[in-house]
Amino acid sequence: MPSASKSLETFPNPAPGRDFAIHMQIPEFTCLCPKTGQPDFATLFLDYVPDRTCVELKSLKLYIWSFRGEGRFHEAVTNEILDDLVRATKPRFMRLTAKFFVRGGIFTTVVAEHRKKGWKALPEVRLEQFPPETNTR
Amino acid sequence: MPSASKSLETFPNPAPGRDFAIHMQIPEFTCLCPKTGQPDFATLFLDYVPDRTCVELKSLKLYIWSFRGEGRFHEAVTNEILDDLVRATKPRFMRLTAKFFVRGGIFTTVVAEHRKKGWKALPEVRLEQFPPETNTR
Amino acid sequence: MPSASKSLETFPNPAPGRDFAIHMQIPEFTCLCPKTGQPDFATLFLDYVPDRTCVELKSLKLYIWSFRGEGRFHEAVTNEILDDLVRATKPRFMRLTAKFFVRGGIFTTVVAEHRKKGWKALPEVRLEQFPPETNTR
Amino acid sequence: MPSASKSLETFPNPAPGRDFAIHMQIPEFTCLCPKTGQPDFATLFLDYVPDRTCVELKSLKLYIWSFRGEGRFHEAVTNEILDDLVRATKPRFMRLTAKFFVRGGIFTTVVAEHRKKGWKALPEVRLEQFPPETNTR
Amino acid sequence: MPSASKSLETFPNPAPGRDFAIHMQIPEFTCLCPKTGQPDFATLFLDYVPDRTCVELKSLKLYIWSFRGEGRFHEAVTNEILDDLVRATKPRFMRLTAKFFVRGGIFTTVVAEHRKKGWKALPEVRLEQFPPETNTR
Amino acid sequence: MPSASKSLETFPNPAPGRDFAIHMQIPEFTCLCPKTGQPDFATLFLDYVPDRTCVELKSLKLYIWSFRGEGRFHEAVTNEILDDLVRATKPRFMRLTAKFFVRGGIFTTVVAEHRKKGWKALPEVRLEQFPPETNTR
Amino acid sequence: MPSASKSLETFPNPAPGRDFAIHMQIPEFTCLCPKTGQPDFATLFLDYVPDRTCVELKSLKLYIWSFRGEGRFHEAVTNEILDDLVRATKPRFMRLTAKFFVRGGIFTTVVAEHRKKGWKALPEVRLEQFPPETNTR
Amino acid sequence: MPSASKSLETFPNPAPGRDFAIHMQIPEFTCLCPKTGQPDFATLFLDYVPDRTCVELKSLKLYIWSFRGEGRFHEAVTNEILDDLVRATKPRFMRLTAKFFVRGGIFTTVVAEHRKKGWKALPEVRLEQFPPETNTR
Amino acid sequence: MPSASKSLETFPNPAPGRDFAIHMQIPEFTCLCPKTGQPDFATLFLDYVPDRTCVELKSLKLYIWSFRGEGRFHEAVTNEILDDLVRATKPRFMRLTAKFFVRGGIFTTVVAEHRKKGWKALPEVRLEQFPPETNTR
Amino acid sequence: MPSASKSLETFPNPAPGRDFAIHMQIPEFTCLCPKTGQPDFATLFLDYVPDRTCVELKSLKLYIWSFRGEGRFHEAVTNEILDDLVRATKPRFMRLTAKFFVRGGIFTTVVAEHRKKGWKALPEVRLEQFPPETNTR
Repeated sequence: MPSASKSLETFPNPAPGRDFAIHMQIPEFTCLCPKTGQPDFATLFLDYVPDRTCVELKSLKLYIWSFRGEGRFHEAVTNEILDDLVRATKPRFMRLTAKFFVRGGIFTTVVAEHRKKGWKALPEVRLEQFPPETNTR
Repeated sequence: MPSASKSLETFPNPAPGRDFAIHMQIPEFTCLCPKTGQPDFATLFLDYVPDRTCVELKSLKLYIWSFRGEGRFHEAVTNEILDDLVRATKPRFMRLTAKFFVRGGIFTTVVAEHRKKGWKALPEVRLEQFPPETNTR
Repeated sequence: MPSASKSLETFPNPAPGRDFAIHMQIPEFTCLCPKTGQPDFATLFLDYVPDRTCVELKSLKLYIWSFRGEGRFHEAVTNEILDDLVRATKPRFMRLTAKFFVRGGIFTTVVAEHRKKGWKALPEVRLEQFPPETNTR
Repeated sequence: MPSASKSLETFPNPAPGRDFAIHMQIPEFTCLCPKTGQPDFATLFLDYVPDRTCVELKSLKLYIWSFRGEGRFHEAVTNEILDDLVRATKPRFMRLTAKFFVRGGIFTTVVAEHRKKGWKALPEVRLEQFPPETNTR
Repeated sequence: MPSASKSLETFPNPAPGRDFAIHMQIPEFTCLCPKTGQPDFATLFLDYVPDRTCVELKSLKLYIWSFRGEGRFHEAVTNEILDDLVRATKPRFMRLTAKFFVRGGIFTTVVAEHRKKGWKALPEVRLEQFPPETNTR
Repeated sequence: MPSASKSLETFPNPAPGRDFAIHMQIPEFTCLCPKTGQPDFATLFLDYVPDRTCVELKSLKLYIWSFRGEGRFHEAVTNEILDDLVRATKPRFMRLTAKFFVRGGIFTTVVAEHRKKGWKALPEVRLEQFPPETNTR
Repeated sequence: MPSASKSLETFPNPAPGRDFAIHMQIPEFTCLCPKTGQPDFATLFLDYVPDRTCVELKSLKLYIWSFRGEGRFHEAVTNEILDDLVRATKPRFMRLTAKFFVRGGIFTTVVAEHRKKGWKALPEVRLEQFPPETNTR
Repeated sequence: MPSASKSLETFPNPAPGRDFAIHMQIPEFTCLCPKTGQPDFATLFLDYVPDRTCVELKSLKLYIWSFRGEGRFHEAVTNEILDDLVRATKPRFMRLTAKFFVRGGIFTTVVAEHRKKGWKALPEVRLEQFPPETNTR
Repeated sequence: MPSASKSLETFPNPAPGRDFAIHMQIPEFTCLCPKTGQPDFATLFLDYVPDRTCVELKSLKLYIWSFRGEGRFHEAVTNEILDDLVRATKPRFMRLTAKFFVRGGIFTTVVAEHRKKGWKALPEVRLEQFPPETNTR
Repeated sequence: MPSASKSLETFPNPAPGRDFAIHMQIPEFTCLCPKTGQPDFATLFLDYVPDRTCVELKSLKLYIWSFRGEGRFHEAVTNEILDDLVRATKPRFMRLTAKFFVRGGIFTTVVAEHRKKGWKALPEVRLEQFPPETNTR
């Protein structure tokens, strides 16, 4: 059984000739409050446009797990995880959103972005948006 | 009874003089994980602005079905399906969104786009948006 | 291509030794208002506990289609469809719910039930209910 | 053009041999506050099991309209409308729910029922409930 | 301008011959934590079957306001408000639900009921339930 | 009683000096599949900025009704209705969205736009958006 | 008790040095159809960036009330209310959205805007949007 | 890597002295239509009160997977899976709900139950129900 | 700063003469999988009718925290927490619902109840249920 | 126990080299109406891009609490809180949204922004948006 680890593995981008986006939801983040030692919980949302490599799912899971016993502030840990992911995958664009559970009656969410130098998003093509349809849920 | 097939059929665009958008939801995509052989499931959302041809519904369904016994990674198969659809219909614009079911506690969605060389979307006219109203649901 | 028809076909109940329930949603019902000739629209919800036969899906679809050109009042047509389905399948229990689209600013829904003589539902086992979970929608 | 009126018309129940339910939503009720003269607004939900007659839709609409210029308290008017509808249709069962718009920071809803003497609901057959499915909304 | 007050006024039940229900939502309750002096917030849901009197809306609002400067525990204050409302209106049935805002990462809701001695609810008539329909929201 | 008709009537724009938008939802569209003769269903969403005339509600309803007995493909009929509405009202801008009911396990929606030559939308003023609030629903 | 009135009162903008937005929801609008005399209902959504004055809440309420006995078409009355509010408050920007209740099976919403000459919105700063969190509802 | 298999494994119930309920959602069921060979999709909801054994999660997953290449009708396969699970775990109570994806414009759901001979549910204690609260989603 | 602890503290029931219900939502439960050592996550829903004592909020929080480093199976830990809470508070009735996060593509929820010997719930008074109304969310 | 206070404390921005966003929801704001002395309630939404400092959570909570006994108008207090927060943290960008509870049948929300002189948001990278997925809620 693999265990929690700070190392992030990657695999080659299967379509490097095209800017495409990967969106990941990671609802199982937990760390400790550096002041009180009490557990904190968050859901992470990762959006990125890969360049040469994509982040490997299993190592991402073990990386997220590695914060379980560590003390981190909300604003700092969001930037730290973004920095680690950027270092590992060197993406064209990456955004990390961390929704933390309520503390002191206040709900905090932190959003941080990285852009590769010189990279520019294609002009957006806005289409109408539609809610998903199906009954197999 | 027709069977699963990689061939995609088309019909002539009934309004080629105008940029208009077609949105399709395909909730029945399944393939296999190339590493473990286990089934993977996704809902596909296809958005495109046709040029001379539109994709024919029935052949699209059989094409989707053709992945049922094949091994594919999430990021790769999304780009492959987009490439196949682009080759068949040569659209002005096409976007494919694939929402995969959770693996390892993480939900992954992949979004890839193709733009015809030289084509530019008309400047967007933003109108207020309203939720659908009716009781015949 | 089969066409609209009042005849309802059935197939043998695969588990006649057990009271089990079948729920069907039919969002494509339309008929005409007998007074004004204008189209009316409804979604039908059919719930039944089969006895020896179940209603066959395709013939049900053609049966529903058969009302397209006929004049019917909301309260009467709901009871008529229930009567036709009961005659065809002789179920242990059947409930038909017809949600009609707004007329005169008022939304009308009609619910009618049939119970086989002597049949009694098993005492209900109430379990907590949970909303569906998944992202493949 | 017909005008607001207190008279309620009926038509014969098309299925008097069966207890079946009619549900109506009437989102356009308004009257005046008897103390201040200011307008009050409510949505009415009517549920009934007809006996020999059903309430006619158009006369119901004109009846609802007749309260537009009249002063009424929330609790009283809900009982008054129920009484009028019972008098007109003599139903086996009738329930009227009136959801009034907020006043003084408090939202009030009133629910009143009538049961025909000697009438008893059939033992309920509880089936699992399912949310409506369709995309034609 | 009237001010916060513990006195609750009533008016005569307009339909004492019938068991009917009144539902009130009061989203503006606040008191203080008796231990820490910090503000607590709740939404109150009041359901009752009046006997001879109904609670008057304005005095209810001023009564709710009267807790703004007072220390109260969640479980105790819910029972106290129910007791006060029962004393004032002597209802056939009354239920008070208090949904408190999160404290210590835990959400607490308290539900208390009073039944008049000898009063029994009529056997329930269960009808299918339908979500509200309208676009004037 | 008026009957289904292809003619669309208009009335003069009451505020021609200003670009303003009209949004209409028409949940009762039905036509036939040209291949199989089976009924198809859709909800239409019409958005337009009128120039000198607006489309008259009743004639729009009869126009929609006129497709009930006619065979049409999804992509073609959306463009045809847009063309008819543009011819009748000569709007500054018009967008028609047609959400069709599922066929072959795939949900299709078609969106087509018309822009008057030389007309340009004012630069958009983006304000925060808020969900509707009220309990009279 | 004040009564319905066409006059709109204002108070000085408390922060005239800054472009800020006020959003108001007014779910209690009703007028009459000029053709049939029947009541029409709408919810109004008002968004504006005040200049020197803001509209006073109570007078706005009485103004809205003043349409209760008057005949107005949907498109015209939306523009008329916007004109009245612009005349009274001379805002930098104002948008009025009127969602009318269904007529003839069709739901109509009208959106009209006014911009002060020479005023330009600041370049928008787009932040991620999050749904509200709390249980005191 | 384990593979699809019809065998269901169990583990001892950790609290056999108490009737408690286990609810499982399995959104990844797929089989083939026995008539046409085309893929069918469903979400399964399993509710049971274990007796001496509980079903083991991994073997359940492989069991579900085993239908991927097999032809089954909706009504039959729901009863077959229930029978297999009952044989493997001999539960006090078990209910299986299978929500199938739309076919022919009609959505079908099948619900089947098993009760151990002589077992009776405890009288239900009905408490008010509350929607889940949290922002870590 | 207090730390994780298995001890549960209580305070005297403020209204022991009445059966009333307390509902608590605890979205921050985490433990480890006994087989793999990987983290598991759940939201706990606690419903109880207190007898002489209520569970103290802070000690409940520290108790929940105490599972963070311990291995537990889903079915077992739900029964264990219920047993601990019953031992500490000796309630008239208690129900614990544990919604675990997806594993192996399957979502599991466990519901366990305790009833004090001889205690019986009062006959339920069923009132219509209404969704919460307010905009301060 | 700390008490209500107008002073706002800060801590150093952990990632000053990057524009990142912090979003806070504060559902517990209450003040008094300056005219009538009656309580007003609002939920505050704070969005900001910090420069050198971030606002400290606990002092923010005590600051919000400080308005409990003070009279403030909706439009004024929103601008005042924004001004105080800007003075304390000197952010690159800050937006405050205050959703007030209904008064006089009208719901008011106020949105005010501050931009640091010379600061410009990076060109936005628009990605598709997805609703959160998980069952641990």
